[in-house]
Amino acid sequence: MALRAGLLDIVKASITGSIIGNVLLVLGLSVLVGGLKFARQTFNRTAAGLGATLLALSAIGLVVPAIFHLVVHGNPAAHEQELSLEIAVVLFVTYLLSLVFALRTHKHLYAGKTAHAGDEALGVAGWSKTKSMLVLLTATALVALMSEFLVGAVEHTAHTLGMTDVFVGVILVAIIGNAAEHSTAVLMASKNQMDLAMNIAVGSSIQIALFVAPVLVFIGYLSGQPMNLLFTTFEVVSVVLSVGVVSLIAMDGESNWMEGVQLLAVYVIQAIAFYFLP
Amino acid sequence: MALRAGLLDIVKASITGSIIGNVLLVLGLSVLVGGLKFARQTFNRTAAGLGATLLALSAIGLVVPAIFHLVVHGNPAAHEQELSLEIAVVLFVTYLLSLVFALRTHKHLYAGKTAHAGDEALGVAGWSKTKSMLVLLTATALVALMSEFLVGAVEHTAHTLGMTDVFVGVILVAIIGNAAEHSTAVLMASKNQMDLAMNIAVGSSIQIALFVAPVLVFIGYLSGQPMNLLFTTFEVVSVVLSVGVVSLIAMDGESNWMEGVQLLAVYVIQAIAFYFLP
Amino acid sequence: MALRAGLLDIVKASITGSIIGNVLLVLGLSVLVGGLKFARQTFNRTAAGLGATLLALSAIGLVVPAIFHLVVHGNPAAHEQELSLEIAVVLFVTYLLSLVFALRTHKHLYAGKTAHAGDEALGVAGWSKTKSMLVLLTATALVALMSEFLVGAVEHTAHTLGMTDVFVGVILVAIIGNAAEHSTAVLMASKNQMDLAMNIAVGSSIQIALFVAPVLVFIGYLSGQPMNLLFTTFEVVSVVLSVGVVSLIAMDGESNWMEGVQLLAVYVIQAIAFYFLP
Repeated sequence: MALRAGLLDIVKASITGSIIGNVLLVLGLSVLVGGLKFARQTFNRTAAGLGATLLALSAIGLVVPAIFHLVVHGNPAAHEQELSLEIAVVLFVTYLLSLVFALRTHKHLYAGKTAHAGDEALGVAGWSKTKSMLVLLTATALVALMSEFLVGAVEHTAHTLGMTDVFVGVILVAIIGNAAEHSTAVLMASKNQMDLAMNIAVGSSIQIALFVAPVLVFIGYLSGQPMNLLFTTFEVVSVVLSVGVVSLIAMDGESNWMEGVQLLAVYVIQAIAFYFLP
Repeated sequence: MALRAGLLDIVKASITGSIIGNVLLVLGLSVLVGGLKFARQTFNRTAAGLGATLLALSAIGLVVPAIFHLVVHGNPAAHEQELSLEIAVVLFVTYLLSLVFALRTHKHLYAGKTAHAGDEALGVAGWSKTKSMLVLLTATALVALMSEFLVGAVEHTAHTLGMTDVFVGVILVAIIGNAAEHSTAVLMASKNQMDLAMNIAVGSSIQIALFVAPVLVFIGYLSGQPMNLLFTTFEVVSVVLSVGVVSLIAMDGESNWMEGVQLLAVYVIQAIAFYFLP
Repeated sequence: MALRAGLLDIVKASITGSIIGNVLLVLGLSVLVGGLKFARQTFNRTAAGLGATLLALSAIGLVVPAIFHLVVHGNPAAHEQELSLEIAVVLFVTYLLSLVFALRTHKHLYAGKTAHAGDEALGVAGWSKTKSMLVLLTATALVALMSEFLVGAVEHTAHTLGMTDVFVGVILVAIIGNAAEHSTAVLMASKNQMDLAMNIAVGSSIQIALFVAPVLVFIGYLSGQPMNLLFTTFEVVSVVLSVGVVSLIAMDGESNWMEGVQLLAVYVIQAIAFYFLP
């Protein structure tokens, strides 16, 4: 709806905010909370490495249109729509192939004992399919309802406090909108299920960058209100820095509380900058 | 010859194109084809790490002159030639030292059983030196002749199709000119000789960046038609992004088909952008 | 004192120079000298990874104000002071927490046998506390005195040779001012104590970026001569490139002489560029 109304900047800000929020705030809190209980936590390096590379691909999908815009003087609007559309197709196809990888050819890296352990960590082991489904639907409806109230309330308060749209979109809405991911990922980390916590945090970012963003570009194209992948300089830099830090932390397959602190520090620095941006 | 004629931009575009093409397209295809046959392929991490760092050094050799040009207002042409010449010397010396590393002090990381396995994979084990030499000379001559025809034909067709010089140089010429590397690297990967495939793909890029480019700068300097290392913004960004992604994928010493898909996705995104660049 | 006199640019140049000098020159020389004696040296990957991430955090602390300055047109001076001050607080808190990590919760990664081995490498094993303290004080005083003489002499010579302030600050002063770190780190590496050499080189950079720089911002704020974290474009790019290369080299937990050559090559390339900068 926000898309149809042409509020493209807010949509884009919430895309960036969700990516940064998940890989820095959600993952940072998970690593910190898990690390305070366990001196050293490990996770599958291959899966984490794939996640980091998919995040890097997402970042490249934002960097290339931004540099294109910078380099091409004059009126590049027409070609930029085409460029964004074709990049969106590449990102979308890569996302579909990553599902084939995770769910079919290399599912042993993700599923198996961890999924079962996840059920136990959440206290839902042994639930029937019908019960699971009902709880899921009820919970989703409640979360959606509460998010709506919360986001509305926060936006109102934020504007009376003089906060800008971009800060509200990138930081506040992202924090509240991802509350479910936050709590689940932190819970998993505190049960020493770091593979699941990584999956939730990094996986959510990847879904937004490689699935949600391309689909919005497709919808915009079909509905005649084209949306491109051209984000503001600061958003692009934020995503690139976030992906770089997460790669450094994820590539070695282990985590400790200090790595959580560092992810959170990068988040806070960027949140401060977004706050002061006019 | 293209250098002497002053066609520096085309020379530079083919340098960038060869680097990007080798580390993204050749390596991506190799990893994908190899990964479709083998669920998980491994290679020597130390050698791959050295390759990634040499690529990073190459990227720095392009970034520093570009930022210098950006920062220094006015007429910096004179200092830029000196800067490029001295950077070329540093890159060239580093390349020579890397040969000492690979061929003398740490040759066990590269040679040995893999070279023999490579002979077998190519079906040339047991050939005499004379036979090897004759086949090599004939093949090289044929490839050079066919490349000449192909590149000429492609350039003509490309221009009638309205493609720009930079797209032809960076993408088309690079694909066709590196056909030999392509087929050998993919063949090696499909025989599970990932060390050799990595060597060909990453090694070719390194040779171009740390040997061919500096030598062209030296020749230009001596012949009075100076060539510098100042590439376009988009070329520099492309090389940096490519090196970043390859580092992420190479550092862990193992590969799977999805990593090949990701390298190819980054290549396609950049090719699209080069296509639309004016 | 240089701070109070308002010579902020020289202070900043020496901050950047110390960071770059330590992670490229000191670490490069150590890895090279150690690598010439030992074919392959190893160090703790977790500690090295933490160092690389803290360096990345430092780089982000420089990148964010620079991009903010670039993005915000008009007169952003007031907000930039606030932004720098708050970022300095985040960096400082992270530094304090990293001390808790290194000295308390995860001290086994750093101390223990290596500290003892370090004493032996330096030939000071078995010294009493009083003797150690006296030698330390005397040595520090002598080094400070000699540095003062040297830096003064070098600055004079450098300016008569036509070198710029920024080259003197970033390159010359950093080399001479860090002479103690240089010799100790190289000595440790040559005794195969790579953990200690890494600690000295990377640790010094982190101290300057996350402790000295924030403290200078605090002092500037309190003394009414505000210093911000806004560095020149070339300094920011240099720090980012240096951190990237060090991460590539440190993450795998092993080193060889060629990695030292590469660090030095990156240093020389940047020194050349700083020399030609007006």
